[in-house]
Amino acid sequence: MPRTAVLALGGNALIREGQSGTYAEQTENAQRMAETVRWLHANDWNLVLIHGNGPQVGNLALQQEEASARVPPQPLFSLGAMTQGQIGSLLTLALRRIGKDDIPDVVSVITHVTVAADDPAFADPTKPIGPFFDRDEAERLARERGWHVAEDAGRGYRRVVPSPRPRDIVEARAIKALIDQGIVVVAAGGGGIPVVEDADRYVGVDAVIDKDYAAQQLATALRADALVLVTSVDRVLLDFGRPGQRPVTELTVDEAERHLDDGQFPEGSMGPKVRAAVRFVRHGGHVAVITSPHLVAASLEDTPRPGVETGTRIVAAPERVGVSR
Amino acid sequence: MPRTAVLALGGNALIREGQSGTYAEQTENAQRMAETVRWLHANDWNLVLIHGNGPQVGNLALQQEEASARVPPQPLFSLGAMTQGQIGSLLTLALRRIGKDDIPDVVSVITHVTVAADDPAFADPTKPIGPFFDRDEAERLARERGWHVAEDAGRGYRRVVPSPRPRDIVEARAIKALIDQGIVVVAAGGGGIPVVEDADRYVGVDAVIDKDYAAQQLATALRADALVLVTSVDRVLLDFGRPGQRPVTELTVDEAERHLDDGQFPEGSMGPKVRAAVRFVRHGGHVAVITSPHLVAASLEDTPRPGVETGTRIVAAPERVGVSR
Repeated sequence: MPRTAVLALGGNALIREGQSGTYAEQTENAQRMAETVRWLHANDWNLVLIHGNGPQVGNLALQQEEASARVPPQPLFSLGAMTQGQIGSLLTLALRRIGKDDIPDVVSVITHVTVAADDPAFADPTKPIGPFFDRDEAERLARERGWHVAEDAGRGYRRVVPSPRPRDIVEARAIKALIDQGIVVVAAGGGGIPVVEDADRYVGVDAVIDKDYAAQQLATALRADALVLVTSVDRVLLDFGRPGQRPVTELTVDEAERHLDDGQFPEGSMGPKVRAAVRFVRHGGHVAVITSPHLVAASLEDTPRPGVETGTRIVAAPERVGVSR
Repeated sequence: MPRTAVLALGGNALIREGQSGTYAEQTENAQRMAETVRWLHANDWNLVLIHGNGPQVGNLALQQEEASARVPPQPLFSLGAMTQGQIGSLLTLALRRIGKDDIPDVVSVITHVTVAADDPAFADPTKPIGPFFDRDEAERLARERGWHVAEDAGRGYRRVVPSPRPRDIVEARAIKALIDQGIVVVAAGGGGIPVVEDADRYVGVDAVIDKDYAAQQLATALRADALVLVTSVDRVLLDFGRPGQRPVTELTVDEAERHLDDGQFPEGSMGPKVRAAVRFVRHGGHVAVITSPHLVAASLEDTPRPGVETGTRIVAAPERVGVSR
């Protein structure tokens, strides 16, 4: 009986620091995940991959501003849908192989995620997206398009949008039907296309859903065994930047919540990941893993092999002895 | 036992003549198909929808040219993938309803279609895409990017790309798994993202696949019962523009081929549709229909109701008497 893992890939998995985002760069970066995906598939894991889309949606937003006199700009959530197509295709082509039975079928599903129309985030948009503008231009766009704008780190003004909490994954049933066939599914790219319920319809809204929170919602909806939050560091660090800084290879949800309460994990980085991990395990998931791409496979083995490095596993009750807490 | 129909929607189904393509316009146009989809679902048809993407991919190509100094342009096939995300999301939101059991689940699948690397179309690119350029600019782009350019109807120069024949639908197995669950699938938008086989990999190529041919390939791969080519006219006309011009409500494949040989159907309009219809029936499909949106439902009824208009049905052998041939 195969188990199911939902893997969330960091936003810079495809366009790295200092890269502009050509198709060739993104394809090469995607290859790095391919080996891990094949190893997991060979070890009887059904897989769902969730990718970030920050750089890609920023590029589309910039392009449509430059051409706004000639082509009507589409709403942000529609740009998000475009990046799901773009990155979904790119990942599919990077992972598929022709005529190899040991390599899984891969399919990318356009995914919508509901948010509450009265989510408090809508009253306080904070997530910057798209290009920088000077102050006059930003104020004009705010007037003409109803945007919220804010100064960003002294580098100019940007549009800011709400980051509401994900509720339901609209396409969960379809995704389940696909993984039940052993097909690797690319889904909920960029955290999903945000929609609110309006009478009997789903209506797109301009917002950005945290990808790790969306991955947790999807993993919980699919009753997945594992949620893997792939990032650029091998393990969660405690007392980061202080004397006694140390990596952890296992945390119980109680320990993780205590560390969250103690302010161990900043909101901009590890906080949402640890919170998503805790929520997944509290809702019945077996294990949540936070780690870098090369440690994903080892971190999902039930029994750690001596001397083999793993990432941070968040579990319901202590499983492994002799690990740093 | 539900039957399966593949519906190909015309390229102007979402952005009509004279419209610029705002999100609101496209959503409103999509509503027109929603009623037909619901009727077919209620009458025990499993459905796959294929949409055009001409205006949308043209808009993206124009946007990325305007911003090419700041954002690296993506290849044409990647723009096609973006429009699958964009239009797939839009159609999903137009068709879905919340909490209504009688209205089907809908999901949009990013779809790749293989073409032969030695397809003769690659030696003779003829399909214009994207914005118009003046001659100097067109020649510069041809040099810098390896584009083929051609004058288009005296209105300027455009990029031209090959239009190769579709072979395999890469995601056919996933699409089958979804329709077997009664889920309406949006797939192969714009004719699919064209890929060639390169050793054991699929590699994207800049080309445009005819949407009606792609729909036929997918319908044949799914062993669908019906292929429906939705267009702006109610029925195929014989002797178009000549004395004796007449609509036909039924054609056998033999009759249709004879008319094709006689040059009854121009390549730019009805020719590919009739050819796709013939190929579908020759490969075992029960019926191919060419008609406008409001006649789709009536055209798929096994027994025509007296006095009820239908489109043109292409079948293996004569089924209905008293129809014009």
